[in-house]
Amino acid sequence: MLLAARLGIDVPTRGTAPRIEDVVLPAPRIAPPAALAALCADDPLTRASHTYGKSFRDVVRGLARDFANPPDVVARPATEADVVAILDWCDGAGLAAIPYGGGSSVVGGVEAPPAGAFPGVVSIDLGALDRVVEIDPVSRAARIEAGVFGPALEDRLRPHGLTLRHFPQSFEFSSLGGWIATRSGGHYATLITHIDELVESLRVVTPTGIVATRRLPASGAGPSPERLFSGSEGVLGIITEAWMRLQARPTFRTSAAVAFADFAAGAAAVRALAQSGLHPANCRLLDPGEALTAGAGTGTEAVLVVGFESADHELDAPMARALECCRDHGGRVPEGAGRTRRDEEGARDGAAGAWRQAFLEMPYVRDAFVARGMISETFETAITWDRFADFHAGVTEAVTGALQRVCGAGIVTCRFTHAYPDGVAPYYTVLAPSRPDRQLADWAEIKQAAAETLLALGGTITHHHAVGRDHRPWYDRERSEGFARALGAAKRALDPRGVLNPGVLID
Amino acid sequence: MLLAARLGIDVPTRGTAPRIEDVVLPAPRIAPPAALAALCADDPLTRASHTYGKSFRDVVRGLARDFANPPDVVARPATEADVVAILDWCDGAGLAAIPYGGGSSVVGGVEAPPAGAFPGVVSIDLGALDRVVEIDPVSRAARIEAGVFGPALEDRLRPHGLTLRHFPQSFEFSSLGGWIATRSGGHYATLITHIDELVESLRVVTPTGIVATRRLPASGAGPSPERLFSGSEGVLGIITEAWMRLQARPTFRTSAAVAFADFAAGAAAVRALAQSGLHPANCRLLDPGEALTAGAGTGTEAVLVVGFESADHELDAPMARALECCRDHGGRVPEGAGRTRRDEEGARDGAAGAWRQAFLEMPYVRDAFVARGMISETFETAITWDRFADFHAGVTEAVTGALQRVCGAGIVTCRFTHAYPDGVAPYYTVLAPSRPDRQLADWAEIKQAAAETLLALGGTITHHHAVGRDHRPWYDRERSEGFARALGAAKRALDPRGVLNPGVLID
Repeated sequence: MLLAARLGIDVPTRGTAPRIEDVVLPAPRIAPPAALAALCADDPLTRASHTYGKSFRDVVRGLARDFANPPDVVARPATEADVVAILDWCDGAGLAAIPYGGGSSVVGGVEAPPAGAFPGVVSIDLGALDRVVEIDPVSRAARIEAGVFGPALEDRLRPHGLTLRHFPQSFEFSSLGGWIATRSGGHYATLITHIDELVESLRVVTPTGIVATRRLPASGAGPSPERLFSGSEGVLGIITEAWMRLQARPTFRTSAAVAFADFAAGAAAVRALAQSGLHPANCRLLDPGEALTAGAGTGTEAVLVVGFESADHELDAPMARALECCRDHGGRVPEGAGRTRRDEEGARDGAAGAWRQAFLEMPYVRDAFVARGMISETFETAITWDRFADFHAGVTEAVTGALQRVCGAGIVTCRFTHAYPDGVAPYYTVLAPSRPDRQLADWAEIKQAAAETLLALGGTITHHHAVGRDHRPWYDRERSEGFARALGAAKRALDPRGVLNPGVLID
Repeated sequence: MLLAARLGIDVPTRGTAPRIEDVVLPAPRIAPPAALAALCADDPLTRASHTYGKSFRDVVRGLARDFANPPDVVARPATEADVVAILDWCDGAGLAAIPYGGGSSVVGGVEAPPAGAFPGVVSIDLGALDRVVEIDPVSRAARIEAGVFGPALEDRLRPHGLTLRHFPQSFEFSSLGGWIATRSGGHYATLITHIDELVESLRVVTPTGIVATRRLPASGAGPSPERLFSGSEGVLGIITEAWMRLQARPTFRTSAAVAFADFAAGAAAVRALAQSGLHPANCRLLDPGEALTAGAGTGTEAVLVVGFESADHELDAPMARALECCRDHGGRVPEGAGRTRRDEEGARDGAAGAWRQAFLEMPYVRDAFVARGMISETFETAITWDRFADFHAGVTEAVTGALQRVCGAGIVTCRFTHAYPDGVAPYYTVLAPSRPDRQLADWAEIKQAAAETLLALGGTITHHHAVGRDHRPWYDRERSEGFARALGAAKRALDPRGVLNPGVLID
């Protein structure tokens, strides 16, 4: 096996996924009021499937049959009125209320607070709120319920020739409400890619009432209310629906994979592209290790996947200029690259297509490694360009050192997921040998080394994975104390009893 | 005089600006502590010049020698430590503290709360905090003090080949801190034009400490702290400096003025352009009346000024496609329009140039009308495209009706200042005969009719002029009650005694 050879280890045999009969859950401590009973479930399978998100730690705990701290009840509202009623119950009874979208959190964002902190825990699964309520083709916007998952949403927009064009890696398993609550970053590398930019208005259920914002293309009336709830991770309220900005489905596409002698040369090209005003839809740089894993390179060169798309116009001119930029920075551009194609599949061939497929399959590969007792995890950040070179060197050194110390071996690779005129979002993948009985402790030590370095060298603890419980120690230090007080006060105004997702983001 | 003929009135003779000797100010009620005396002034000229902003109402009150409610003291800090000391004094003594940038507020954002509400009022003029502290040419960003005015800022960036590229109409008379505190809208019509998008990090002095955010190209760690302070209008703290995102100074430019038979046809073209992904730098539509006033049309046709600029690449391809869009919507494109020019003055010729000059001179023209006892004022809003036609018809009808009723005559014209994929920002200008003794009452009645209609038809009370005191009645209704509670709680956490700009934005 290729990766075993690169790691210089034997890959152990695979652990097996738990069967529900093997899982022991504590008995539910609470029962819903009669009026809500039809919306609630407390069977073991439902509770077990809402115990964790999808982080490395979650997969390890799941494989270990550790379901010691599940929600007592899983509520599944079908309407906004149901959400109000369920939250009223939680607020009145002092129960922790955890908004649950797709459950794809990788930061402990949907798990119960420590046992004993609350008399009961209710996971509120928004999955039945999955309608596209209204489409406005003139303004290109739609009113969408928060529980809809990515593929279903796109299926409903497609007949109208529209798309949200927001494709996080978790696309299949995550919901609109979850994207907004975590300030999700889309697949696209530049310009409008964060979900924040796409929110026209919101409805949020809080224990003290519904916050509804006005549908507007822009406003200068006070601080943006939508931006207070974007990234609030369920601690201020439960997002039930949003008017979202859409786009016409692209029909023109062009894409190329450009090789660079090393990551630094590729990074210089990405900076030039991000500052050019060309706004490529794709501009992802893979270091030699990532390029090899993705099947998009030889393992000796960095590969930049650059692409444009449009529903309106040919893309030959911007692509020609982008490839010129790449050549100026030492990039090797394939013969004949960069012609605009008009078929839907245009972007799915060659190295660019291989990378795209690998990107979508990555989470499955991760789980397979974890099941073999290995450490397979990612972390991500953002940094301004002036600090990037030292930052990347420092992070790589710290993590490589930790891998040697903790696991005796391991590799760390890097790609850029998003590029900005003033900086970049590097995304690191760690793969190392471990053993089922020490996977979590090993990873905790490596994560600690990584996170401390991110913070010390000027980065952020998260560019798009959110804070949850897992990033709290570093978020608390990254965030200004004054802003923490303001945010905490806003929470207490909306959620005076502190029932909403306690322990996540703020206290 | 052309406008007199259009209004069917005699334009009265001009009132004269007050001399400071003619102005009677109440005696200052407070004196600064000795340690701050050197930073403070209470002479009549300084106090009078900090009494008002630059709204119609302010000009009328100034011409009437009404300076009954000035600040007691004007403090002029030279450092952030000075700001801390001055705010400590205000907080300790319970004095109203009004952050003052360029004083170009048109919404009562820099005037004292009603006399008697506080034992004293201190206007804190940030004008001496005007340095560009640090420039990062790699990330294209600069650390800039909040009090710098537009022209001085651009003068300091020019030698580095960089620009903030933020040109609100008040550019000459307004400051970076003021732009951020009011979510200023720049001159550019699409894409990155609001100041919010350009803020990389902030430092804000509050009565309970300094809030400093981390310099990052993007982050997903909780709600954005910068967005809480953007648009906070001085009620949460005093912005002392910011890292701002810059751009290379454009060297390629192309611009054209396209005529349309009417405003609706022009609006359809603007929507197509805003949804095209072409991202024109300029995309301003003038109705026939505005085009005439700006010297950019005959008064019978609407005129769209469309332009592109870049520091990186030729613009022939996007401009050709933009002009094709215009033709598709019935636009009359001048012969030979749309060639990329490389000289700095390229955008300053012809109808586009005439409009630009008129745009910059408009505030002076306004003051001349006001001095003649007329009503000359603007209001602005934003609305989604699906509602635009009914909205514009309703607003025009309501304001025209109010003008007839109140003044017996008057005109209302409209232009688009900013265009979005999902909507547009219409900007209305009102000109009507009145008399010095009833100018304010007349305008209040017209403004009431306009604002009620904006709100009823789904718009916002302000797209980029901010809320201040003047827009409070409508902002309080536009804003969700839950968000008001959250924002009020955040304010009390940062400013427990409520000394910061009391009465503006929230209570």
